[in-house]
Amino acid sequence: MLDFLKQRRTIRQYTDKAIPAELMTELLTAAAQSSNTGNMQAYSVIITTRNEIKAQLAPAHFNQPMVTKAPAVLTFCADFNRFSKWCEQRNAVPGYDNFQSFMATAIDAMIFAQTFAVAAESAGLGICYLGTTTYNAGEIIEVLNLPKLVVPITTITVGYPEKMPELTDRLPLEAVVHYEKYNDFSNEKIDTLYAEKENSDFYKNFVAENNKETLAQVFTDIRYSKKNNEFFSEKFLKVLQQQGFLD
Amino acid sequence: MLDFLKQRRTIRQYTDKAIPAELMTELLTAAAQSSNTGNMQAYSVIITTRNEIKAQLAPAHFNQPMVTKAPAVLTFCADFNRFSKWCEQRNAVPGYDNFQSFMATAIDAMIFAQTFAVAAESAGLGICYLGTTTYNAGEIIEVLNLPKLVVPITTITVGYPEKMPELTDRLPLEAVVHYEKYNDFSNEKIDTLYAEKENSDFYKNFVAENNKETLAQVFTDIRYSKKNNEFFSEKFLKVLQQQGFLD
Repeated sequence: MLDFLKQRRTIRQYTDKAIPAELMTELLTAAAQSSNTGNMQAYSVIITTRNEIKAQLAPAHFNQPMVTKAPAVLTFCADFNRFSKWCEQRNAVPGYDNFQSFMATAIDAMIFAQTFAVAAESAGLGICYLGTTTYNAGEIIEVLNLPKLVVPITTITVGYPEKMPELTDRLPLEAVVHYEKYNDFSNEKIDTLYAEKENSDFYKNFVAENNKETLAQVFTDIRYSKKNNEFFSEKFLKVLQQQGFLD
Repeated sequence: MLDFLKQRRTIRQYTDKAIPAELMTELLTAAAQSSNTGNMQAYSVIITTRNEIKAQLAPAHFNQPMVTKAPAVLTFCADFNRFSKWCEQRNAVPGYDNFQSFMATAIDAMIFAQTFAVAAESAGLGICYLGTTTYNAGEIIEVLNLPKLVVPITTITVGYPEKMPELTDRLPLEAVVHYEKYNDFSNEKIDTLYAEKENSDFYKNFVAENNKETLAQVFTDIRYSKKNNEFFSEKFLKVLQQQGFLD
């Protein structure tokens, strides 16, 4: 199992084979047994397989080809709608229209999503997360008819792998693991942690192809720029207001 | 593997046995191979095993006994600190002091946390998530010396299970799974989804012990009240500001 997790790859190209409905039910049942806040199960997933609706979702994901080509697109949501409706029907006053409740349900949506991902991979499927979900959450809400107190957090495209790509590199463990308390990084430590990555031919070519001086500049100037992050921050905060999670 | 995931239980009581360092490294390595935004690995975990520091963390988790009794307490963080430092050292201007970047790194922290949880369980360990992490994030930041652009998102206590509790119930899958688009719930549907839970002796006793009329009231009046949620919302939003993720 550990070896399996260490060998996993993100899969962006899928065969045409559909995912059997019984398998999908098994994967979702397994995912639903993972931890969640107070056993409220305040999360949801929308499974889109119809070409017409996948095409409507695609622009929200900047037309990344996985969205229309994967047999299934799963949109995982923070969701206090069902739970709040239940409270109202049971003479109880729900108080989940606030940011702390958003955090709890977003965390639960992610636990559910990642257990689904591991389950799917263990069954021979391949997955890809789409970070564009929080960029264009408002557009996704429109397409999927998400009511108040429901906000899309992440999307996973799923299907049978067309081919197995190379294993992706990771930083040394000390880049992300601290013992007892946080040990902040000296300049020398940063150099050490990034040395292997920065000296690899793969990333040297990547920097050159992008006409940048350093790998970091590819991130700050092209992939995840301050300007874009600020633009999409404002957009997402408005969505949280609109859906009832922020005053 | 699916059967294993379907049979998992949250473990709140642990034996005294420490987790071998090599096993911990294996689990973390496996977790680090899971998906993350742009392979930036903008997340971190602080592993606390010393009694003195666990005792300092305990009040932030309302003194739930798992914190001092578990052999290891793992605090998973949204973390753009290391990545931003790297950018600054590489003549690149980081732009991750905003809410969209917080969402990306919080999502990545959760993917990392849940893969760790599944890996740990597959190795015979038991885990418990602590939702109190976002309630008292400021206090945790103080104890663990978390710098700017680092915010604790969730905590997992880990150890070898003292005993195996009963499997926890879950709602029927239709409560959390929607096909193609969101199918909002009629009153009748809510009744159907909650019937088994509400009719079980376990929950009937639970309602009676709490002196409430309905199970929903135990949640709204005692466990997750509007007043508390609003109080802890304001607290957490201030932490996001203080750590540099919100204007």
